[in-house]
Amino acid sequence: MSDDLTKNQTFDVPGGYTPLPWHRGFGRQVGPLYQLIGEDDLIVSRAFRVEEHHTNGMMNAHGGMLMTFADMAWGTAVETDDNTWWVTIRLVCDFLSGAKHGEWIEGAGEVISREPDGIHTVRGRIWCGDRTLMTGTGVFKVIEQRDPDKRKPSRGGR
Amino acid sequence: MSDDLTKNQTFDVPGGYTPLPWHRGFGRQVGPLYQLIGEDDLIVSRAFRVEEHHTNGMMNAHGGMLMTFADMAWGTAVETDDNTWWVTIRLVCDFLSGAKHGEWIEGAGEVISREPDGIHTVRGRIWCGDRTLMTGTGVFKVIEQRDPDKRKPSRGGR
Repeated sequence: MSDDLTKNQTFDVPGGYTPLPWHRGFGRQVGPLYQLIGEDDLIVSRAFRVEEHHTNGMMNAHGGMLMTFADMAWGTAVETDDNTWWVTIRLVCDFLSGAKHGEWIEGAGEVISREPDGIHTVRGRIWCGDRTLMTGTGVFKVIEQRDPDKRKPSRGGR
Repeated sequence: MSDDLTKNQTFDVPGGYTPLPWHRGFGRQVGPLYQLIGEDDLIVSRAFRVEEHHTNGMMNAHGGMLMTFADMAWGTAVETDDNTWWVTIRLVCDFLSGAKHGEWIEGAGEVISREPDGIHTVRGRIWCGDRTLMTGTGVFKVIEQRDPDKRKPSRGGR
């Protein structure tokens, strides 16, 4: 038996995106996710392909998946280096359009306010080609890292 | 080899809750979820145990999972029978406290406004014992069912 995958079992990853190395927990469960890293080594945008395990009963991306992705794509806007840790305080998500099984979804956020206590407000968007799927606002708090052994792996791979 | 599970591989489901029968898509991916059905055959609350595949890097329930659960636990408040279909228009989630690996999480919503075009506003809460994890507001639209063959299975099993 061959392990080769057919064309139907694989898909092309649009230029510049690399897979996230999440290998456990919820990040793995909802993956695979991808990200585009800029010249400054910061994340420009994140993305995923709508697979069967992301869909609702209408074979569109589940709202829970879109919100999970919003958290992951918008929250990362507060990161100033590979090792910034943050938690979500509030997320407001407006659902504007759906995404079908097989579509390539991208998302990014922009910090619009930065308070001294680590509280950041981020304006975010999720899109599929020219179509906006979701807009919203996230409030994220950058936290101190507690355990040096739990440093994130370097992003690399760009 | 025995298929018997040890005590560590199983857990007790608090009284009255029954597993949701979701066997595909995102609902399966983030499961198992449970629900408590009332005398009127409507859902009183939903619940899940925080398992490894729900956790973030701090071994707490991932924010994406809590929002996904909020969508599933609050949106169901708009249902008037087994066969009500709805979509999420807006979800506002305020994160108040975290949930650790192994904890039993419950959530429910209450309709606070019902508009003629199917738009419902729901006030929701997610908790763990006496601790509130999240409060928020959902706007959900009840939609017409498109395909009679895709009727939901009866809830039963209560």
